Amino acid sequence: MRRMISGGLIAVGLLLAAGPATAQDLVRLQQDPNQWVLPGKNYAGTRYSELNQITTQNVKDLKVAWTFSTGTLNGLEGAPLVVNNTMYFVTSFPNIVYALDLTKPGAPIKWMYKPNQDPTVQGVACCDVVNRGVAYADGKIVFNQLDATTVALDAQTGKVIWQVKQGDPKRGETITAAPLIVRNVVITGISGGEFGVRGFVTGNDLNTGRQLWRVYSTGPDSEVGIGPNFKPFYDDHKGKDLGVTTWTGDEWKRGGGTTWGWYTYDPELDLFYYGTGNPGTWNPDQRPGDNKWSMTIWARDPDTGEARWAYQMTPHDAWDYDGVNENILVDQEINGRMRKTLVHFDRNGFAYTLDRETGEVLVAEPYGPVNWAKGIDKKTGRPIENPEKRTKQGANTTNICPSAMGFKDQQPAAYSPRTKLFYVPTNNLCMDYEGVEVSYTAGVPYVGAIVKTYPGPGGHAGAFIAWDATTGKKVWENREKWAAWGGALVTAGDVVFYGTMDGWFKALDAKNGQELWKFRTGSGIIGAPMTYIGPDGKQYIAILAGVGGWAGATVSQDLSLDDPTAALGAVNAFGGLKSEIPRSGMLFVFSL
Amino acid sequence: MRRMISGGLIAVGLLLAAGPATAQDLVRLQQDPNQWVLPGKNYAGTRYSELNQITTQNVKDLKVAWTFSTGTLNGLEGAPLVVNNTMYFVTSFPNIVYALDLTKPGAPIKWMYKPNQDPTVQGVACCDVVNRGVAYADGKIVFNQLDATTVALDAQTGKVIWQVKQGDPKRGETITAAPLIVRNVVITGISGGEFGVRGFVTGNDLNTGRQLWRVYSTGPDSEVGIGPNFKPFYDDHKGKDLGVTTWTGDEWKRGGGTTWGWYTYDPELDLFYYGTGNPGTWNPDQRPGDNKWSMTIWARDPDTGEARWAYQMTPHDAWDYDGVNENILVDQEINGRMRKTLVHFDRNGFAYTLDRETGEVLVAEPYGPVNWAKGIDKKTGRPIENPEKRTKQGANTTNICPSAMGFKDQQPAAYSPRTKLFYVPTNNLCMDYEGVEVSYTAGVPYVGAIVKTYPGPGGHAGAFIAWDATTGKKVWENREKWAAWGGALVTAGDVVFYGTMDGWFKALDAKNGQELWKFRTGSGIIGAPMTYIGPDGKQYIAILAGVGGWAGATVSQDLSLDDPTAALGAVNAFGGLKSEIPRSGMLFVFSL
Repeated sequence: MRRMISGGLIAVGLLLAAGPATAQDLVRLQQDPNQWVLPGKNYAGTRYSELNQITTQNVKDLKVAWTFSTGTLNGLEGAPLVVNNTMYFVTSFPNIVYALDLTKPGAPIKWMYKPNQDPTVQGVACCDVVNRGVAYADGKIVFNQLDATTVALDAQTGKVIWQVKQGDPKRGETITAAPLIVRNVVITGISGGEFGVRGFVTGNDLNTGRQLWRVYSTGPDSEVGIGPNFKPFYDDHKGKDLGVTTWTGDEWKRGGGTTWGWYTYDPELDLFYYGTGNPGTWNPDQRPGDNKWSMTIWARDPDTGEARWAYQMTPHDAWDYDGVNENILVDQEINGRMRKTLVHFDRNGFAYTLDRETGEVLVAEPYGPVNWAKGIDKKTGRPIENPEKRTKQGANTTNICPSAMGFKDQQPAAYSPRTKLFYVPTNNLCMDYEGVEVSYTAGVPYVGAIVKTYPGPGGHAGAFIAWDATTGKKVWENREKWAAWGGALVTAGDVVFYGTMDGWFKALDAKNGQELWKFRTGSGIIGAPMTYIGPDGKQYIAILAGVGGWAGATVSQDLSLDDPTAALGAVNAFGGLKSEIPRSGMLFVFSL
Repeated sequence: MRRMISGGLIAVGLLLAAGPATAQDLVRLQQDPNQWVLPGKNYAGTRYSELNQITTQNVKDLKVAWTFSTGTLNGLEGAPLVVNNTMYFVTSFPNIVYALDLTKPGAPIKWMYKPNQDPTVQGVACCDVVNRGVAYADGKIVFNQLDATTVALDAQTGKVIWQVKQGDPKRGETITAAPLIVRNVVITGISGGEFGVRGFVTGNDLNTGRQLWRVYSTGPDSEVGIGPNFKPFYDDHKGKDLGVTTWTGDEWKRGGGTTWGWYTYDPELDLFYYGTGNPGTWNPDQRPGDNKWSMTIWARDPDTGEARWAYQMTPHDAWDYDGVNENILVDQEINGRMRKTLVHFDRNGFAYTLDRETGEVLVAEPYGPVNWAKGIDKKTGRPIENPEKRTKQGANTTNICPSAMGFKDQQPAAYSPRTKLFYVPTNNLCMDYEGVEVSYTAGVPYVGAIVKTYPGPGGHAGAFIAWDATTGKKVWENREKWAAWGGALVTAGDVVFYGTMDGWFKALDAKNGQELWKFRTGSGIIGAPMTYIGPDGKQYIAILAGVGGWAGATVSQDLSLDDPTAALGAVNAFGGLKSEIPRSGMLFVFSL
């Protein structure tokens, strides 16, 4: 069963980038289809598994093999890992980490680790108290607590090896993202875009936790990690200290650009990729300028944090189109030429296919009914805006598509090298948006907008789609009543899996989107499926079920439905979920 | 599929006891094996189903059909009902009632009702904030809130029809039991034996909620419902105002005898049956006398509450052997003669087979390694005590079996007319017990004992057993690591179902106890299984999974393990569960 992962180039690349033993171990493990050792399966984040016991023919017979309760009721994002016959995952706050022994019947707890966090940290989590997963490397499980602490545990025993405070919740700094580990560097971001946090990314030593580097999303080049090796593709991104000069006054100091999304890595180029979130306040009139480097995809050196290129998707954001969505690294033929691409489905409604060596936009097409921009200018890299949809302070701009939640939010897409398609869980949401003046106080929301969200054209709030990133075209779609807020998995059995906010875990035919199977988990799914081979040689599929996150916070946080603009606009669109789905915290594991 | 329920006499009796249309409806519904309209399946509380699609041969193929999250994390006792293709159940605090539409895929919510209770009521629940189920009659769902409110909802819409306050949580009065409805009378008890509550049972009008009668467990005959028709079998139970005279001073006013267990009803005799709990403080030296009518099984008239007979199992209790366990009503041949019997597995470790017309003890044998008494004197009905095991104030009496939790607690047994056996989930627990002086303050614990609980002989904390109640003999047993704290179900397929505190839902062969199947629910089970036929004609088995209750409170209430005597002695015996099983609130529904 130990075949190479898809994208032979990546595997070769990993071998070329020979580092210390620890790196080699992680490389070997992620090539093993029997295991699932990174949140996105591999450094490329394809969420593609070579396993093919479960096929389009037999998936109809999939059954629950066993279940496990997380002991929590808030939203469960992310996917479990399976390393050496142990399953690892972390819950929503209080961020309990479980290690389950897959070699024993019913997968009993091997160890559990419950951090002792100040519960008041939950008050500065903008959108439910989620966590997107643990990382594994060199016998360690590394994860981020909501209170902005990064913790390394012994994977065998759950004992704490080190912990490091990355930020201060009293200033609104929290962490919800999964770490990325490259060689001996643990890479983590920060959340708090709604609290005027100045975003950053940190590298810590895997063995000691010592901080190796930190680079900010705003501010002078020296603090942003911009140096002589920074070679952005577009003129727009060239110039000294743009992280200061594209802002008014010192607004960059509370400039957002937080880094709470997914991280991927190309071992051959030795670059890691991530996106930054919204600029400071949501009120655009309070921060004239392009607001660099918010809303930006970055390529950086994992050893130093140094930037190689950057590409800002949404200059001077007026819609909260955070650029944090995952960047999937695959090599594709574009216009007859093989390119090392990065594919990114942005909150702003455009699906970008970039050259991941240079940051050049190769393809940028809407993957939903975008109306704030007519397209992306390939010469400048900038969106061609529709002035009617640029929001303002003191005026309610209506019917903007997508909504602040984007046509996609945290829910990660998958890519199959067999079909050469991307599988994308999407939202179909539009909004009304009005900027309001807001003043900054540390640790207090710094939002500055009134937002009302509702389903877009068609009236459905989401769809699961297949996307050709070489042409920028949707191949098929499966509509959902609610946003498809959970991640995707695609396998060599040509089956694609995802969950819905109303509790169905589904299997579709990767080739045509036909629904082949579904199971009712009893609560909404916002997590990402994964697959592995158990000690018995059988293929298993696992999914965490627990509604929540920004969209599902109406349920998980039991919000009042009185104000449709509450929860940053979520209540209007998702209030109805409260009468359809209860809160939950469950792991479901399926097999034939 | 509409066959008579087992025990033809009971069904005939129901027809003879022809009352208003509403009663007839409930009679008809409980005879229908496709439905499950009473917590114990029928008035007799047999938890036996005529359904036989699932057999000892095919139960190995049982799979999860669908699941539902309750949205809660405290202990889930009781079983759902299924009436007219709708499944109804109530959660632990905050006591959300769900109606699920079985006619639609995934059984979506038809309605839900979330009471608005003062959360501080949780502080006066002795042993987790459980609830043992809803009752159905005449288009209404009736249930008890923890805050001692009885509520009737429209079964179609979930709208409140009436609600009645039965007690005052500020005095420690709460309700955890399921109501019993007989004709137009809703019968409910009260909890609070650890708060010096004076126990009572109330009859309310099904249509209006108006109180029809209330009878107390202690006090003068006039308040206890003892009148000219009271004909106890034993001399010990005869005399005026024993509910006062068997106490010292006015201790009867805080005399316990709470009524939080299961209720059954014999339509032919027109009597309902229930047991009363421990006398006031657990310190026996503070309340000399027999302490009537604590620890007593009652037979009463449902229209008036008037007592027909009573039988006190544990006079002057010194062990907290609450007499509240269920009384299962079946007709059995005892010594060659058919008797209308009542079978009761008491906390004190004896399994009683009584004549339910008279209260005579026919059989009383230990169903575990009892050592506090050598047996029950058939002439007097009194236990033959071992003086060494009678607890005292100021002295630690050690190695008493059973423990205060009994060899069985709330977990209800089942009876199969096919095997003529009772299926009993049991504890194997012993204890050390020391009485301590305590003074009464309303709403403050009035316990007066230090208790430490541990597994009994053999080292296992529980077992699931089959019992012949005509001879008082155990036929087989299946040992469990933890107490078998969940209820039993037995079917005409000769399969018996129960769950374990460490999360396994199991099927055994009713004839020999062989384990045929098990499934890992991911949290401990303390609820009771039920079965029904779905709209598709298939047999389903449902179980609520959520560890908690007295034994599981270490997990559900996240108790510190520092003091082994905490949680009324539970921590020492059950602290280890915390590292094995998380909290949960899930409904699992299985089918072939």
